[in-house]
Amino acid sequence: MIPLRELEFDLFEVRGDALDTEMMQTARDVLRAAESIARERFAPYASLADVEEPIVVDGKVRLPAQTAEALLAYSEGGFLGMSFPVSSGGLGLPFLLSQACGSLFASANVAFQSYATLTQGAAHLIERFGTAAQRERWLPQMLEGRSFGTMCLSEPHAGSSLADIRTLATRQPDGRYRLTGRKMWISAGEHELADNIVHLVLARTPDAPAGVKGISLFLVPRYRAPGVTNGVTLVGLNHKMGWRGTVNTALAFGDGEACYGELVGELHQGLACMFLMMNEARVGVGLCAVSLGYAAYVYALDYARERLQGRPLSARDPAMPQIPIIRHADVRRMLLAQKSWVEGGLDLVLYCARLVDEAEPVANAPTADGARRERAALLLELLTPIAKSWPAEYCLEANKLAIQVAGGAGYTRDLPLERLYRDNRLNHIHEGAYGIQALDLLARKVSLAGGRTFDIWCETVGETIDAARRRANSLTGEAAALRAMLIAHADGMASAISVLTAVTRKLTATAAAGEPELAYANATPYLEAFGTVTVAWRWLERAIVAAEALKHGVDVDFYRGKIAACRHFHRFDLPRALAQLKMLEALEDTALRMDETQF
Amino acid sequence: MIPLRELEFDLFEVRGDALDTEMMQTARDVLRAAESIARERFAPYASLADVEEPIVVDGKVRLPAQTAEALLAYSEGGFLGMSFPVSSGGLGLPFLLSQACGSLFASANVAFQSYATLTQGAAHLIERFGTAAQRERWLPQMLEGRSFGTMCLSEPHAGSSLADIRTLATRQPDGRYRLTGRKMWISAGEHELADNIVHLVLARTPDAPAGVKGISLFLVPRYRAPGVTNGVTLVGLNHKMGWRGTVNTALAFGDGEACYGELVGELHQGLACMFLMMNEARVGVGLCAVSLGYAAYVYALDYARERLQGRPLSARDPAMPQIPIIRHADVRRMLLAQKSWVEGGLDLVLYCARLVDEAEPVANAPTADGARRERAALLLELLTPIAKSWPAEYCLEANKLAIQVAGGAGYTRDLPLERLYRDNRLNHIHEGAYGIQALDLLARKVSLAGGRTFDIWCETVGETIDAARRRANSLTGEAAALRAMLIAHADGMASAISVLTAVTRKLTATAAAGEPELAYANATPYLEAFGTVTVAWRWLERAIVAAEALKHGVDVDFYRGKIAACRHFHRFDLPRALAQLKMLEALEDTALRMDETQF
Repeated sequence: MIPLRELEFDLFEVRGDALDTEMMQTARDVLRAAESIARERFAPYASLADVEEPIVVDGKVRLPAQTAEALLAYSEGGFLGMSFPVSSGGLGLPFLLSQACGSLFASANVAFQSYATLTQGAAHLIERFGTAAQRERWLPQMLEGRSFGTMCLSEPHAGSSLADIRTLATRQPDGRYRLTGRKMWISAGEHELADNIVHLVLARTPDAPAGVKGISLFLVPRYRAPGVTNGVTLVGLNHKMGWRGTVNTALAFGDGEACYGELVGELHQGLACMFLMMNEARVGVGLCAVSLGYAAYVYALDYARERLQGRPLSARDPAMPQIPIIRHADVRRMLLAQKSWVEGGLDLVLYCARLVDEAEPVANAPTADGARRERAALLLELLTPIAKSWPAEYCLEANKLAIQVAGGAGYTRDLPLERLYRDNRLNHIHEGAYGIQALDLLARKVSLAGGRTFDIWCETVGETIDAARRRANSLTGEAAALRAMLIAHADGMASAISVLTAVTRKLTATAAAGEPELAYANATPYLEAFGTVTVAWRWLERAIVAAEALKHGVDVDFYRGKIAACRHFHRFDLPRALAQLKMLEALEDTALRMDETQF
Repeated sequence: MIPLRELEFDLFEVRGDALDTEMMQTARDVLRAAESIARERFAPYASLADVEEPIVVDGKVRLPAQTAEALLAYSEGGFLGMSFPVSSGGLGLPFLLSQACGSLFASANVAFQSYATLTQGAAHLIERFGTAAQRERWLPQMLEGRSFGTMCLSEPHAGSSLADIRTLATRQPDGRYRLTGRKMWISAGEHELADNIVHLVLARTPDAPAGVKGISLFLVPRYRAPGVTNGVTLVGLNHKMGWRGTVNTALAFGDGEACYGELVGELHQGLACMFLMMNEARVGVGLCAVSLGYAAYVYALDYARERLQGRPLSARDPAMPQIPIIRHADVRRMLLAQKSWVEGGLDLVLYCARLVDEAEPVANAPTADGARRERAALLLELLTPIAKSWPAEYCLEANKLAIQVAGGAGYTRDLPLERLYRDNRLNHIHEGAYGIQALDLLARKVSLAGGRTFDIWCETVGETIDAARRRANSLTGEAAALRAMLIAHADGMASAISVLTAVTRKLTATAAAGEPELAYANATPYLEAFGTVTVAWRWLERAIVAAEALKHGVDVDFYRGKIAACRHFHRFDLPRALAQLKMLEALEDTALRMDETQF
């Protein structure tokens, strides 16, 4: 699990302005409560949830009993509604805090946590777009855990291409809609964990325009009333490589028995509704990726401190006892790489969570500054595909290295490392695959609001560069090395901005000149490099905070660790990203141009 | 499975001088026979071997029946002894050909194939170091598949650190040795596939010097005579993430019942014996990594041609039908990356296999040129850690991308892609972990024979650069683009050699100056970058061959695909490796120097 100390650093030090004093005390209490439930109710059953996969018995999905027990403790702890407005039955706490708690649950047992996050996502949609009657009926039971939620987007023939969904919703004389169709990859689509399941279903009405502009959103309960089924039937379970404890289903709507749903939001605005929630869902995926990588890092670190193997390169006398493997340079390198990725990733997703709070204050606080809100909203738009994808790439890599640290043991199912690696492989796929995120960033987000999104990113990073230089100039004497490092990394960030700006201009200009295929052919490596530059920026900011904290002489190792991880990231990862960006500037088109028969 | 056309390109075109005309015909026949057995007996049961893991029933290991059937077809086909001298009961065929066949079996079902390769490895040791009596007794039954073999190196407390093994071998008055101790991670350690199992066991005699200089090698049969057990007992099975169809065991020797073995080779020369075989075993690991990556690439390519999803970026009319995903730029990029890694990796391991043949001609052919043999042996020493590790890294990455191509389906167990990914994760761990290979390369191999190994590598790559320039200069007219490309990549290779040379000098000089810890701290990224430069060289050579073949206007798509993969690799992978090498030249030491408490 992610250590509380790390979350406190992220929440109270790096983001010292995010929470007022009272909220900070609340946050400490809430984090401790979350940590306790995650440790006692989630973590002990992560392996069980993997091994005892959901099965269908007598037409019902059977899960390990501990699933329901964990989710009961979760909902009784108030975590389902913690970032919902008090007026909707929530606790009105910042999204930032709910994500910090989420990282604890996900790092303990991501499969259990998914039932909760899907319910929150569905409830959010109803809270935002539902009628008063819908909100009144469904929100209390969802936030109390009596009804769970799902998101039904994909169909067997339409995964990434939502334009092609075929599920039909036909309006009835009483205003309800009758649904027919099939949905695929529906997590938590069928189970006995709650009295009811609220499916939020994308479908098209018979007269709808083709493509995404004809999609509407429907609320479809599993039961119309207690004991009265609603024509939602389980077609089958999907069996995945990992994330096995979250039941994943294929569902049929209105196959035999009639299935009724209610429209949520405006007709034909279904995808827009869904996408307004997407930022949070995608940052949530990033958070899961970080949590899985972080859990493995913590485990590998403990392992490396305890496992004795070999001797120092410079003193290999076999008569001497073996040393803990953390003393071997290659193991340290692997551990520091993991640290720099998982902590950098955690910072990135929590930065985005903070932007959600700034862009959409829970209580519509009267002090909210409109310009600042808009700025936060635009930056969040830009960072969302990065926060979704960069951790999916690098925290999976961290999982890979965690296995390597433990060697043969790490490859067995006796340790949790291989499971975390299998689980994490999903994050590049669900909620919009890597390539979709990359197109979102390059073809849409960097040019949003006339390119202001990208400018805001540059300015925000520029502020950190200035702050690093100021902090460096305030350091003297024995801190000379730290001073030099901050200056070097500030300079490094400044040139990274230049390179990224040049590449972004080149690619967007190419697209504008009528060659979108060429411009976007390497959108994925563009996103990857953009993400690395972004995390390098987050590390610079963390190093500034750590450099300041070091003055007080408390918790020195903790802060020196942050400085070291920053340096490692800037020296190893950033140069690779810059090399990649320069290659992108050359508009590499080999894969694009080659004939399909040449593969 | 790997296509025969690809292996024919590798064997008969890229390595046109490796086999004479008669042997080429033999090779064609043998490859076809291998392909047929792999397709009929191995491939259909790869998923079964994964799902129906070995279990212990009444003290015996139970495997799916198809395991024995496949291995019977394999040994009846003569594949067990194909590269053994005729005088030992083998077919006397080149190691190159046996590896090409091996790639077919491994890409069909690596778990089944492992029983065969372990037997071959053990038999090779006996053939090379055994007494005449040992060879006479054991080789025929091993090469006929009546006895299978194992390699028993690791112990529970000694994985990478063989200096610390404790298994004891005490000489008896009759000259035999009595063994006591435990071995860990023993693949094929117990099963009923053959009449007997020949364990080759590293152990130390009571008076042996400490460390690796006191290790001897022993032949320990499971049965002393038919039905007479020999004190080798199964302690338990290891349950791995992948590669599940090869039973992996913990064994006890002489625990209760007495266990007798015979010395193989000289006393205290056990590790040296083992290591003389290690080049072949490690190239074999590289071959498995390539085969698993290749199998996934072939599957993903078929999937991408058939799966309809989305529309071209420049024509997104939802009224138009969906297109095969191979037309999407990002899917093409992922496919070409996979192609460039798995084909480049295959070339690398087959290049090494050819070096084995050159360095150690099967029949000690009188025409063998001593200087050429020595040169081949040195180059093989250098390339072995690369051939073992580079495919384990990049072909695993290829497996990751193959899953991504298939999206949600790729993440399920309905497709073979997730299994291939799980299987491949092992290759960085067994037969010497990544970090061990890296130290072998940087701390030992580049400086071997006074640094001649590295010089030979530079000269050999230099010859390809010259050949590329000659080929380029012979191209005219419509081949102008190809000409420019060959020149650019030849120039790129020349500067890569400079960079690699400078870094290698800097690091070896640092070690020589008394700072080995600093010099070798980043040996793993050094190996990775060295590997990428090496594969870039292989691709340049393949492109030269393809450019020549294109003149004949036959199989044009096949050869153009090679050119495209070369270009992609040189534009994407090589620059990243050079950026990494430059970082290594700066002697990055953050991880090395930081305090253990700072992680």
